[in-house]
Amino acid sequence: MSGNKFSHLDAEGKARMVDVSDKEDSSRTARARATVSMSGQTAIALKDGKVPKGDVFAVARIAGIQAAKRTSELIPLCHPLMIGSVHVDFEVIDGCVIIEAEVHTYSRTGVEMEALTACSVSALTIYDMCKSMDKEMVIADLVLLEKKGGSSGHFLREADLK
Amino acid sequence: MSGNKFSHLDAEGKARMVDVSDKEDSSRTARARATVSMSGQTAIALKDGKVPKGDVFAVARIAGIQAAKRTSELIPLCHPLMIGSVHVDFEVIDGCVIIEAEVHTYSRTGVEMEALTACSVSALTIYDMCKSMDKEMVIADLVLLEKKGGSSGHFLREADLK
Amino acid sequence: MSGNKFSHLDAEGKARMVDVSDKEDSSRTARARATVSMSGQTAIALKDGKVPKGDVFAVARIAGIQAAKRTSELIPLCHPLMIGSVHVDFEVIDGCVIIEAEVHTYSRTGVEMEALTACSVSALTIYDMCKSMDKEMVIADLVLLEKKGGSSGHFLREADLK
Amino acid sequence: MSGNKFSHLDAEGKARMVDVSDKEDSSRTARARATVSMSGQTAIALKDGKVPKGDVFAVARIAGIQAAKRTSELIPLCHPLMIGSVHVDFEVIDGCVIIEAEVHTYSRTGVEMEALTACSVSALTIYDMCKSMDKEMVIADLVLLEKKGGSSGHFLREADLK
Amino acid sequence: MSGNKFSHLDAEGKARMVDVSDKEDSSRTARARATVSMSGQTAIALKDGKVPKGDVFAVARIAGIQAAKRTSELIPLCHPLMIGSVHVDFEVIDGCVIIEAEVHTYSRTGVEMEALTACSVSALTIYDMCKSMDKEMVIADLVLLEKKGGSSGHFLREADLK
Amino acid sequence: MSGNKFSHLDAEGKARMVDVSDKEDSSRTARARATVSMSGQTAIALKDGKVPKGDVFAVARIAGIQAAKRTSELIPLCHPLMIGSVHVDFEVIDGCVIIEAEVHTYSRTGVEMEALTACSVSALTIYDMCKSMDKEMVIADLVLLEKKGGSSGHFLREADLK
Repeated sequence: MSGNKFSHLDAEGKARMVDVSDKEDSSRTARARATVSMSGQTAIALKDGKVPKGDVFAVARIAGIQAAKRTSELIPLCHPLMIGSVHVDFEVIDGCVIIEAEVHTYSRTGVEMEALTACSVSALTIYDMCKSMDKEMVIADLVLLEKKGGSSGHFLREADLK
Repeated sequence: MSGNKFSHLDAEGKARMVDVSDKEDSSRTARARATVSMSGQTAIALKDGKVPKGDVFAVARIAGIQAAKRTSELIPLCHPLMIGSVHVDFEVIDGCVIIEAEVHTYSRTGVEMEALTACSVSALTIYDMCKSMDKEMVIADLVLLEKKGGSSGHFLREADLK
Repeated sequence: MSGNKFSHLDAEGKARMVDVSDKEDSSRTARARATVSMSGQTAIALKDGKVPKGDVFAVARIAGIQAAKRTSELIPLCHPLMIGSVHVDFEVIDGCVIIEAEVHTYSRTGVEMEALTACSVSALTIYDMCKSMDKEMVIADLVLLEKKGGSSGHFLREADLK
Repeated sequence: MSGNKFSHLDAEGKARMVDVSDKEDSSRTARARATVSMSGQTAIALKDGKVPKGDVFAVARIAGIQAAKRTSELIPLCHPLMIGSVHVDFEVIDGCVIIEAEVHTYSRTGVEMEALTACSVSALTIYDMCKSMDKEMVIADLVLLEKKGGSSGHFLREADLK
Repeated sequence: MSGNKFSHLDAEGKARMVDVSDKEDSSRTARARATVSMSGQTAIALKDGKVPKGDVFAVARIAGIQAAKRTSELIPLCHPLMIGSVHVDFEVIDGCVIIEAEVHTYSRTGVEMEALTACSVSALTIYDMCKSMDKEMVIADLVLLEKKGGSSGHFLREADLK
Repeated sequence: MSGNKFSHLDAEGKARMVDVSDKEDSSRTARARATVSMSGQTAIALKDGKVPKGDVFAVARIAGIQAAKRTSELIPLCHPLMIGSVHVDFEVIDGCVIIEAEVHTYSRTGVEMEALTACSVSALTIYDMCKSMDKEMVIADLVLLEKKGGSSGHFLREADLK
């Protein structure tokens, strides 16, 4: 159907998994980023090591890695796939924690949802671990930065090209 | 330890679950909100029914409800609890989908992480279902709006009080 | 809303979990039954011990018990609850395996879905273990036999009252 | 042991997973069907849109798709595999909902258990969503309709060949 | 049945969950311990900080906490329960990592399996993270140290009383 | 980095999954063993059939097989992989149950963690099923016996070579 760009919905609007059985395995990478903005006090506590920040990030990193592996359980129309690696990193800048996740696979389908899910669950874990200090935190600007491999070509987020 | 406001970390900075065994069960509610901003074209397609939007939201709602029930599996230091109800709603305004989740329980601990997790996974599901049209979508401004019940008192997000 | 008997759907037809937070805990039991009908040859093999039937039923029983504990992960609008016990039993009669499951809890909501899920997954496991012999098996007549406890009163399946 | 056709049980009757490590990946499909029979009143409500049936089926479809992806967690001796697609469809005829599921993969082992599990969990979800109206519903006649691909050849259910 | 001390098996030897529905909630604690013995070189690397041991233990601690919460999914006849807290600690002595886990709940059934599972999965995680250096490691002497609360009284491991 | 033999930790000590995306699939096997030592009375009861030992081992075997399939959910930095087969066997000798697990796959990464996890969860299940008789049981000496396939070569535990 020419006008239907929503690949998860058939002509009658019923949800369906896009069939990837006949695609070729290939090397695929995706990178995503999220930001947790918090009060200056909370960010300083995290950054200056007045609180044991190492552990906050260690817990959030593991949570993000494990969530990436369970993406197809969380997102109903995602395909299970064999994740090859997940990296999750954190940087504290100006009252914000920047989270970046990169996922790599050799598979039939892309890993953008896995990278976004890793960022999302890492951010929620930071929220959970800091919420006794600061309930006004905002998990902001979760975006797909880059996607490589597969038939749809190389995607680089426009805002990051400027 | 007087200066340590991070209730998940003990004096040496090791991760721990806060013990809730001796708390009383009580009625607790939390509300959270997230926004998915997208191109005008994608939002119009969702809103004007050119695409079967009912189903996009139906799938995203179920994903959010199911994720709320699995919060303690995703967030390492969260407690399992008996969720009483989860509501997830969507509104399309000006190129954005606004997602609001409300969780209610009668339990020993609060449900703010459950409400945030529901919003987060609903938003990821919308991203997944629309990404063939628009990879530049932003999942923005995931916040806790309100928290009622339990010993820490009533929380209403300041930005929403103004 | 007077005409809407579908308690999982609100006035606009959106899926929701019924709120059980304010219900009282009480003792609740449910019993369900399913039938796997198979070729005479398969049933005789199971019954006469020419094949080690004990193990088929041991595996199917464990599968049913474990599935009952995960019902709220499988059925989107089911509530998590603390299962107190699950019993799953099997009888071979006339080319059929009769499966009966009983679930007991002390909780805010009933366990009929848990009993039905236990029967269903036990039946699927029997199918899986016998399918190399017989792919024409039918998993038939999965029904709720009885439900006790809770505000909706005692339910006994009519067909079993005759 | 020549007479042992139960491929999941070794010569001593102990449960085992059949080793598929040395099989070739190939394209495989399975189709299954189940029926939920209900009172005329419930079926009419579903069919005539007096109740928002779209959502009942949307929820049941998602439940079935997600269950198919988790088959190897539910059925103890099933192999994990990379599902390529799952379709679940519903038809209301004469007081019955007919559920049909089709699963496709490119893998080392067949997907008949995945198709049967999708039907089974979709049917349980319909039961759950309608049980406040009708507890006498019967989930009936869950069968494998067809299986293609793999070394065991093409299977078409005999009853459907007539 | 007087001679049957295996509470999970009924008179015919079929597996069953012991019914805890009618037990009273009470405060319950369990402590367990395991040892990972390794080459002197691996233990020194862990202890002297030549390798970033903090992270090995941070990952193993999170793995143990998360596993404790999923005990009823792993051990077929265990009851789901609401864990109140889990603590996992590590000490490096003489070429061994000693792991101790303590679990607390206010519930109908004990948490000894949760404490043992936490130790076990923390130990497996240490093995996983060090196995590129040392595949001869031994996970040894996983025991229940203490169990308090519930009707069966206070248990203190005899070997630890001497 | 020459001195860092901990392949899961990068140069800064942050946890990471080793990237296996570019490895070749190959046939891989691992065998592990654990011991549950118990009082003579418990072992005799298990061995002499005074208690229905068949079922204890049937339940423990299924628990081990299912846990092997979920290894990547339990061990944070393990890769998901397609398990080809799992065998779990038990022998009762001199007051001990010896558990041996063998896992086979055709995949990009080894299955030693899967074999160790199967042994570990089988042992925990035996503990759970016998703990009403004997809480002093010890789960001892969980080791990797052998690992074949993959680039790191054939590993045979030294203690078993003597």
